[in-house]
Amino acid sequence: MLMSSEQSLSRELAHFAATVALAEIPSSAIDIARLSAFDWATCALAGVDEPVSRAVRGQVLREQGVGESVVIGGGRAPARGAALANGATSHALDFDDTHFLHIGHPSVVVMSATLAMAQRCGSTGADFLAAVIVGMETSVRVGKWLGRGHYDVGFHQTATAGAFGAAAGAGHLLKLTTEQIQQSLGIVSTRASGLKVQFGTMGKPYNAGIAAANGIEAAELAGAGFIARADGLECALGFGQTHHGSADMGALDDLGSDYWFEDVSYKFHACCHGTHAAIEALSSLLDGLGADSQIESVTIRTNPSWLTVCDIAKPQTGLEAKFSYRHLSAMVMAGLNTGDPGSFTDEVCGDDVLISGAEKVQVVGDPSIGDTATNVVVQSVDEVRRSAEFDLQAPMTTIETGDRLGAKSTTLLGSDRSRQLWNAVQKLETAETVSDLVVELEHTTA
Amino acid sequence: MLMSSEQSLSRELAHFAATVALAEIPSSAIDIARLSAFDWATCALAGVDEPVSRAVRGQVLREQGVGESVVIGGGRAPARGAALANGATSHALDFDDTHFLHIGHPSVVVMSATLAMAQRCGSTGADFLAAVIVGMETSVRVGKWLGRGHYDVGFHQTATAGAFGAAAGAGHLLKLTTEQIQQSLGIVSTRASGLKVQFGTMGKPYNAGIAAANGIEAAELAGAGFIARADGLECALGFGQTHHGSADMGALDDLGSDYWFEDVSYKFHACCHGTHAAIEALSSLLDGLGADSQIESVTIRTNPSWLTVCDIAKPQTGLEAKFSYRHLSAMVMAGLNTGDPGSFTDEVCGDDVLISGAEKVQVVGDPSIGDTATNVVVQSVDEVRRSAEFDLQAPMTTIETGDRLGAKSTTLLGSDRSRQLWNAVQKLETAETVSDLVVELEHTTA
Repeated sequence: MLMSSEQSLSRELAHFAATVALAEIPSSAIDIARLSAFDWATCALAGVDEPVSRAVRGQVLREQGVGESVVIGGGRAPARGAALANGATSHALDFDDTHFLHIGHPSVVVMSATLAMAQRCGSTGADFLAAVIVGMETSVRVGKWLGRGHYDVGFHQTATAGAFGAAAGAGHLLKLTTEQIQQSLGIVSTRASGLKVQFGTMGKPYNAGIAAANGIEAAELAGAGFIARADGLECALGFGQTHHGSADMGALDDLGSDYWFEDVSYKFHACCHGTHAAIEALSSLLDGLGADSQIESVTIRTNPSWLTVCDIAKPQTGLEAKFSYRHLSAMVMAGLNTGDPGSFTDEVCGDDVLISGAEKVQVVGDPSIGDTATNVVVQSVDEVRRSAEFDLQAPMTTIETGDRLGAKSTTLLGSDRSRQLWNAVQKLETAETVSDLVVELEHTTA
Repeated sequence: MLMSSEQSLSRELAHFAATVALAEIPSSAIDIARLSAFDWATCALAGVDEPVSRAVRGQVLREQGVGESVVIGGGRAPARGAALANGATSHALDFDDTHFLHIGHPSVVVMSATLAMAQRCGSTGADFLAAVIVGMETSVRVGKWLGRGHYDVGFHQTATAGAFGAAAGAGHLLKLTTEQIQQSLGIVSTRASGLKVQFGTMGKPYNAGIAAANGIEAAELAGAGFIARADGLECALGFGQTHHGSADMGALDDLGSDYWFEDVSYKFHACCHGTHAAIEALSSLLDGLGADSQIESVTIRTNPSWLTVCDIAKPQTGLEAKFSYRHLSAMVMAGLNTGDPGSFTDEVCGDDVLISGAEKVQVVGDPSIGDTATNVVVQSVDEVRRSAEFDLQAPMTTIETGDRLGAKSTTLLGSDRSRQLWNAVQKLETAETVSDLVVELEHTTA
């Protein structure tokens, strides 16, 4: 996209959101959008019984209203309310996708907003996929524009940058003009919120719901002729400046040709993202070891930044186990499924086999290792020494990612529901509506 | 209220909100709450046809839902949606009350939230008045705690501080415990928003609606067992710190005994607040002048900070006339009603009599004059010189204020509706429900 000398962030993002069509989008981006939709729906269905999901869903359903959009976990609601509930529900397990440049979780916000709006608008599956891509890409671009400083000072980029993505995606489905989508972004600039201090409380998943609902409200108002400050995101004293944004205009590079959201990263383990590379590396080493091999020691080398996050030496609760390199390594060696949230019980911390396994593990901070990578060395009694390094950003084929997301979904939902969900997502590109996907989301737990 | 060494802002505010009863509140505070309720309702009813009111009301009504609360301008909605629409509608004319320490407009947020919630809860008139006072006082205290820097950097304190007041007032009506109201404040800390760059757009009144709706959503979730960061307002990286707050703990001084919201200031003229003292001073001088007196010159001395705000020399539109000391003075001299928004037409700017009247007016910046005061000197051909100073913060009796608000309401609504509204508000303290007031708000324009 050519940038004029009067380049305006909001204007460029709105132009992209209003004008892009699925036919112009590379197939790799469409593949990733489908994978994210599948993973998002899996996480949402698995999260319906979490307390935050029940609380937000209960509030939305109490209001009743036009039942245009499915509320995952049971019921229907206006698109805005459904997006609020589904955003919170799909982020409740914190098992959804992450984008490191965005510094946030794009799907929980964007999928919640666009799927709710697609039902309201009777959109085709192709329109829904295009809106997902618009929303994901806008979230990532705004996250990049806000930058690391915005996150470090205390804002939850999932919610702040995410709300702009949700508005863009919802606006695409409402077939708003460039001017109207720019208005949506201007409205969101006075509506977006979300603090990191909520981490560890229900406030974290709620933030995702807030962003999804804000995006829908903004797009609906813009469509109804609401006039806000159209450059509220980037103007002096606008959202960026008041919220410690870096205003990195590199965020617009190659917008419309390069789809940065494709670098989204999936969680295959129901524990802290900082431990995932270690689990992958360790698992790859165990694959080749005979069942009767005796492991003498495991050495994990990781970026020192993780040592304050997920190196709890002797976890006492299931939650703490999710932040313990040692205990997680013992679970992997014992063959427990770290992709199953149900594996993380308090009891698992008192298990003697796991405790003695954990004692064999040593964790070493190593600044030469990137923060998405980990090096693991296994010393077994009958072999000399095996070593592996894993980087979460290492490319994975679409098929391989799909297989792993399928396995995750099977663990969380069972094989039948997982397969039906997969099929509904695969057919989106040619589906007349999103109703096949919605049917899968209408399942409620027993 | 005694402060412990572990004084916590949220805890103290929540304790006040949960435990205060109308019987403990000084009658002067109750008088002001009634006056503000009357003025708020007047402004809301007068604002129903503004474009922002139609847009937000339209969106809320489109969602349908349980019709528990009146939507001013027509219809009913869930309490949260009604608060959103009514907040925007009551601030649409920018004619509502202001509190200088809060740096905001308390009633548009707090009344919108508490009246909607009072209907949902079937509260008595006395409970509603207590909730209004809780909400107004909490808004003012949080506004003071955030301080001038928060406003100057770009936040709209009406909306940001206001959302905490709305949550406290709504929580009082839901009869939440101290812990639950503290949770409400924690939820609002991740939900509150509102930028000053929206001034001059529909975004400004929308900000008031956002705050009212956020307060209701937070109180409802807290009542349903939602657990957020309970000290999200004041903790490190909490709302205050991320939003450039000053953390002025003097904001808690005499909480529960002194009611700071009583200093609220009403608008009697439908133009920029910075011009009001000049209008009052000039009017007082004209009172004594004979009808055939010939005015030679008018000199207005005002704080220099206003010269960049409301000293448009030759306004071209009705909106610009609201920001013109000279043209407003000419309107006053010609006997036009500056309390009537209908006086501010584009035509009034082309009127020859007013233009020549405006040419007699001189505006002088004078740093020795406070920003709520103005000195006016009138020189007439048959008299030597008359001078008056008016300060908006000069005390006015409840009766005098009521008379002036009554005249304002009569101008905006007509005498019958104004009187009925006044009577409904006067009876609140002993009313079994708020339904008499609601009936007055159900009137729609022809």
